[in-house]
Amino acid sequence: MSAENYGESVKNLLEASGVEVFDEVLVETSDGVRLKGVLMPRPEVGDPEVLVLKLENGYNIGIHVDRVSSIKSVGRREPAPLVELTLPRGVEKLPKVYFIGTGGTIASRIDYKTGAVYPFFSAEEIYSMVPELEEIAYIRAETLFSIFSEDMTPRHWQKLAERVAEVYRKEAPRGIVVAHGTDTMHYSAAALGFALRSAPGPVVFVGAQRSSDRPSSDSAFNVIGAVVAAIEAPFAESVIAMHGSVSDDVILVHRGVKARKMHTSRRDAFMSINALPLAEVELPSRRFRLLASKYRARRDEVEVKPRFSEKVALLKYYPGMDPSHLEWVIENGYRGVVLEGTGLGHVGSRLHGAVRRAVKEGLIVVMASQCIWGRINMNVYRTGVELLRAGVIPAGDMTPETAYVKLSWVLGQTDDVEEAVKLFEENLSGEYEERSEYRVYPGARWWA
Amino acid sequence: MSAENYGESVKNLLEASGVEVFDEVLVETSDGVRLKGVLMPRPEVGDPEVLVLKLENGYNIGIHVDRVSSIKSVGRREPAPLVELTLPRGVEKLPKVYFIGTGGTIASRIDYKTGAVYPFFSAEEIYSMVPELEEIAYIRAETLFSIFSEDMTPRHWQKLAERVAEVYRKEAPRGIVVAHGTDTMHYSAAALGFALRSAPGPVVFVGAQRSSDRPSSDSAFNVIGAVVAAIEAPFAESVIAMHGSVSDDVILVHRGVKARKMHTSRRDAFMSINALPLAEVELPSRRFRLLASKYRARRDEVEVKPRFSEKVALLKYYPGMDPSHLEWVIENGYRGVVLEGTGLGHVGSRLHGAVRRAVKEGLIVVMASQCIWGRINMNVYRTGVELLRAGVIPAGDMTPETAYVKLSWVLGQTDDVEEAVKLFEENLSGEYEERSEYRVYPGARWWA
Repeated sequence: MSAENYGESVKNLLEASGVEVFDEVLVETSDGVRLKGVLMPRPEVGDPEVLVLKLENGYNIGIHVDRVSSIKSVGRREPAPLVELTLPRGVEKLPKVYFIGTGGTIASRIDYKTGAVYPFFSAEEIYSMVPELEEIAYIRAETLFSIFSEDMTPRHWQKLAERVAEVYRKEAPRGIVVAHGTDTMHYSAAALGFALRSAPGPVVFVGAQRSSDRPSSDSAFNVIGAVVAAIEAPFAESVIAMHGSVSDDVILVHRGVKARKMHTSRRDAFMSINALPLAEVELPSRRFRLLASKYRARRDEVEVKPRFSEKVALLKYYPGMDPSHLEWVIENGYRGVVLEGTGLGHVGSRLHGAVRRAVKEGLIVVMASQCIWGRINMNVYRTGVELLRAGVIPAGDMTPETAYVKLSWVLGQTDDVEEAVKLFEENLSGEYEERSEYRVYPGARWWA
Repeated sequence: MSAENYGESVKNLLEASGVEVFDEVLVETSDGVRLKGVLMPRPEVGDPEVLVLKLENGYNIGIHVDRVSSIKSVGRREPAPLVELTLPRGVEKLPKVYFIGTGGTIASRIDYKTGAVYPFFSAEEIYSMVPELEEIAYIRAETLFSIFSEDMTPRHWQKLAERVAEVYRKEAPRGIVVAHGTDTMHYSAAALGFALRSAPGPVVFVGAQRSSDRPSSDSAFNVIGAVVAAIEAPFAESVIAMHGSVSDDVILVHRGVKARKMHTSRRDAFMSINALPLAEVELPSRRFRLLASKYRARRDEVEVKPRFSEKVALLKYYPGMDPSHLEWVIENGYRGVVLEGTGLGHVGSRLHGAVRRAVKEGLIVVMASQCIWGRINMNVYRTGVELLRAGVIPAGDMTPETAYVKLSWVLGQTDDVEEAVKLFEENLSGEYEERSEYRVYPGARWWA
């Protein structure tokens, strides 16, 4: 069994010790710990110099090669062959939910035979991972991309939007679920929110903060929540279904254009910003509860406007920022820039000249706030008034990320600056709340 | 009375109607509203084409000039002359608190005679604005800067740190309060957190989300909380004192290096991130309650290391970001860059080449997360491992803003890259929590 995905030091150690992947081994560490387990192939993620051992209790443990003082083979355990999977009986009568895999933690699985990563998004495998679905939905599935979500670009958004529209037209599912890495899921969900103008059902993005082969994985419950939402939602919007707490008690359904990943690792990393979620799915009852009264309803017609401009930049302002950052954007063919300013929508006065020049040269300059919560209001302070006069467009209560996606989409629709500004200022997909909901903020003393 | 600070349309209207500032006027709007009040000078903030009327109930109202169908003078009311202010009797016996004004909403006042803005930070005026202080502290005050906080730069941080050290040495107050605009207050408070290595008392930043002449102003309570903290805190850290709720019931004292402005307009805009606040001050009892067990204590010695490098950039990653943004930073003499990556600390693979080049050319490349909450962990996914190997330094659980300030400070201390990296990786001022406090996050369902 090859150790080829491991790093050089691990390979050398294994060779010197006569140990192969899937051998049962005894490991002794430099700090005197003795462990027995099966040496696993290197997982798709993680440090290549960390040996992964499956202990007898079923848990995996990682040991950095530098800590290993000895490893020896005491037996060999071939992995169980993958079961030939078939579709559960009778599921064809259930509402049809179509999965599109794009990559990320949720959409990948390790083949313990080869160590290779492959997408698990065949319908059969989804049922095998989440048996509850046999009672809920008729799953169909395909893999569109297999990439880490930080590698998503506006081109991927376009392909995904086109494919979603095609699936609704040709496969007529009740809803579509998109498996996506969580890192940039809110950007992609916002993108589909703008691109899909009308649809017979929702596009439900789902991901996992812990990979499926870990006991603490959140993927099964997230998938159940996503499928229930895809079937029961009265809305045909682009949404994100993820844990609402650290327990397995509720999945929140966030409107894509209002959602944001707010924690690096917690299961309930996604929040709705300046809005409440559209809905929630209670677990284990799987009860769907609508929270919003306004939404885009399911319609027979499928309408997609999938183009995005790649000549849009997002620049975060910080004290001491040199105006030449912005000059660089102007000089490099960008058609729009979202400034992530401070407070109500400000950047230092040394940038104002560059802002005026950007507008003069035909760039659309949008102001969003790095506060994340709240609303741009450039009428309060002189700085804001000056920027407004210079032609800066306030992003209202949109997050900087949604403002960026929206500007990319708007500039994908038209080459005319005036028309683009007009389009940007419209509430296209629920991304603007008409009034500031003062209470949709956790408060500074949320912990009390 | 001149209307000189108003915009052109207002000036023309006033001239045509024979109305002067401070006249009692009758205004009729195009939608049929009739209002009586005193025409005020244009405030320092706000749209110059909005007339400000002080109504008989004492409230100010703004009316855009386009809505005014007629305005006429019905009398004249001279503003009350400013009272000659004196220090309240006996305050010299109270603990001494030294105010340093830097600008912002809290530190400015309109002179209704001239319409000019001037800093109110004489001790006498602070007492007149917050009479409760007569029982609490012996206030001394000075104005260091009068700028909007978005115009603060690392040079201002340096001057402020130097002045704070000097005041502790020469004036020996119990504590120092810095009045500061809220937009970038957390950057400045973090800067002082790194620069002031030892002090006899804290530096308490305070600001206002509503200006002092508005009935809803939060400044008086924030100032009370800041002064109480300056006197009673056992710690000698750089902190932020701001409302903990929308009521006037508690002021939170956040560690500067862990604080962030999280709402554009709410009074409780500041949160501690990945940590609880250091303390709180209950209102109206003014009881000081310590929440933290670990802090830097008051020490006789004043030690300040005030230098910051201005050659540090903060770059936020977004899907589709072109590597040439980063190339530009490398080519323009920067010595360090903080990447605000996604999730656990990732940027798209098309940027990895530029990252490697940056490190090769001697830049310090730090990775922070745009999630804001949580902790960088680059050992989980291959992307992170590759970036770590390229020499990227993880920012732990620091916000991107604190990581930026820290890198600026570190590169102000040494020209040696290795030494700078070592210094950056230390926990210098409580900016790293040693372990991830899982619970210090509002949770996705904070509203339930």
